[in-house]
Amino acid sequence: MALVPNNTLITETPEQGRELAIMLARKTVAAIQTDAETRQQLRPGYATNADSLTMATHVVAIEFATVAAANDYWRSHAVSS
Amino acid sequence: MALVPNNTLITETPEQGRELAIMLARKTVAAIQTDAETRQQLRPGYATNADSLTMATHVVAIEFATVAAANDYWRSHAVSS
Amino acid sequence: MALVPNNTLITETPEQGRELAIMLARKTVAAIQTDAETRQQLRPGYATNADSLTMATHVVAIEFATVAAANDYWRSHAVSS
Amino acid sequence: MALVPNNTLITETPEQGRELAIMLARKTVAAIQTDAETRQQLRPGYATNADSLTMATHVVAIEFATVAAANDYWRSHAVSS
Amino acid sequence: MALVPNNTLITETPEQGRELAIMLARKTVAAIQTDAETRQQLRPGYATNADSLTMATHVVAIEFATVAAANDYWRSHAVSS
Amino acid sequence: MALVPNNTLITETPEQGRELAIMLARKTVAAIQTDAETRQQLRPGYATNADSLTMATHVVAIEFATVAAANDYWRSHAVSS
Repeated sequence: MALVPNNTLITETPEQGRELAIMLARKTVAAIQTDAETRQQLRPGYATNADSLTMATHVVAIEFATVAAANDYWRSHAVSS
Repeated sequence: MALVPNNTLITETPEQGRELAIMLARKTVAAIQTDAETRQQLRPGYATNADSLTMATHVVAIEFATVAAANDYWRSHAVSS
Repeated sequence: MALVPNNTLITETPEQGRELAIMLARKTVAAIQTDAETRQQLRPGYATNADSLTMATHVVAIEFATVAAANDYWRSHAVSS
Repeated sequence: MALVPNNTLITETPEQGRELAIMLARKTVAAIQTDAETRQQLRPGYATNADSLTMATHVVAIEFATVAAANDYWRSHAVSS
Repeated sequence: MALVPNNTLITETPEQGRELAIMLARKTVAAIQTDAETRQQLRPGYATNADSLTMATHVVAIEFATVAAANDYWRSHAVSS
Repeated sequence: MALVPNNTLITETPEQGRELAIMLARKTVAAIQTDAETRQQLRPGYATNADSLTMATHVVAIEFATVAAANDYWRSHAVSS
């Protein structure tokens, strides 16, 4: 199983970096709980619990910090509105 | 859905950086719990629980650390009192 | 509402940086729970719970890390005993 | 017992860095709870609890931040799709 | 009240840096819960709870990361065994 | 009591850095709960609780991040397999 999609932390945009951060967190969960059905069963419970959502959001924030640093914060990326 | 508003981490001021940090956290929640109604239903519960608020504040602090680093802490930004 | 007092992360001293870190955390809470009365009602509960206090202290530590980095740790600031 | 496999934080790819981050977290658990049987007994409980999984994922994210920094984010590593 | 003892993050040794990290965390608690008697009453409860102790230890680790960075990790400090 | 063994963050290898991270966390616990007997009584409880173990592992990860940065990630250290 791939823990890091495309095996790189480099993305073209902050948006893609954010998507990668979410993916990284999900891949780790899948590496710990390898049974997809079990993961699926857990989803409704935590996705309707505010604290569980905050905890998951926290992990994404940490992963994003790493991805953002890896991309030098996309400073040279032109803003696309 | 856009996870990063305007697809950039660069803001003009610390205040705007703080607003972005809050937005980033909220966008992640929305990416995990995609149903807006469910998110709305969860809000009263966690917004009246001190620990839930602290947990949410914690995530904003992490996101802000990334945004602040991306902007080199707005060191060249003139203070506006 | 101002999320960042004076719209800057730069302070003259570590002490002021610490005060800013506490303010930043409080302003975020106020941005999430906008009703001042509700926030006031929550205060006695968490201020008399050790784990709640530790959680709040944790957030201040994260905010301070950002403020301290922004100020280059006040290395050029003369020690005042 | 080895806490750091191969006694290095340097890996060839982000994928291997991610695997190392997971290993580092597991080795710490083993250093605290040295009885393998006890660790095995705890596994079913936390692997079927969403918050426990999120907490474990959080630790991996922190370890990965260190491993990624050690490897300068594998910036010179060619992307392999 | 002083939130940062001596109003500096600079210490002579890692040991003193560690002491400062503990002090910073305690001063924040005191800033949030200003009543010393209440703080004293909370102490027995959390000091005999493993998770509460771990949470407090976590905050010290975060504060120390900042203090250590401020002191450039005391790299030029000679080891005293 | 020494909070930082040998009063330095510098170690020869990542493995020793990891050991130091564990030590730093334990020394903080001992600084907060100074009674060794009480600490010993708490151990069985948290060492058989998955979430407690994860929380402790989290603290070690944070301490290690600091130790690793202090040692410039042992980049110049030859790999010993």
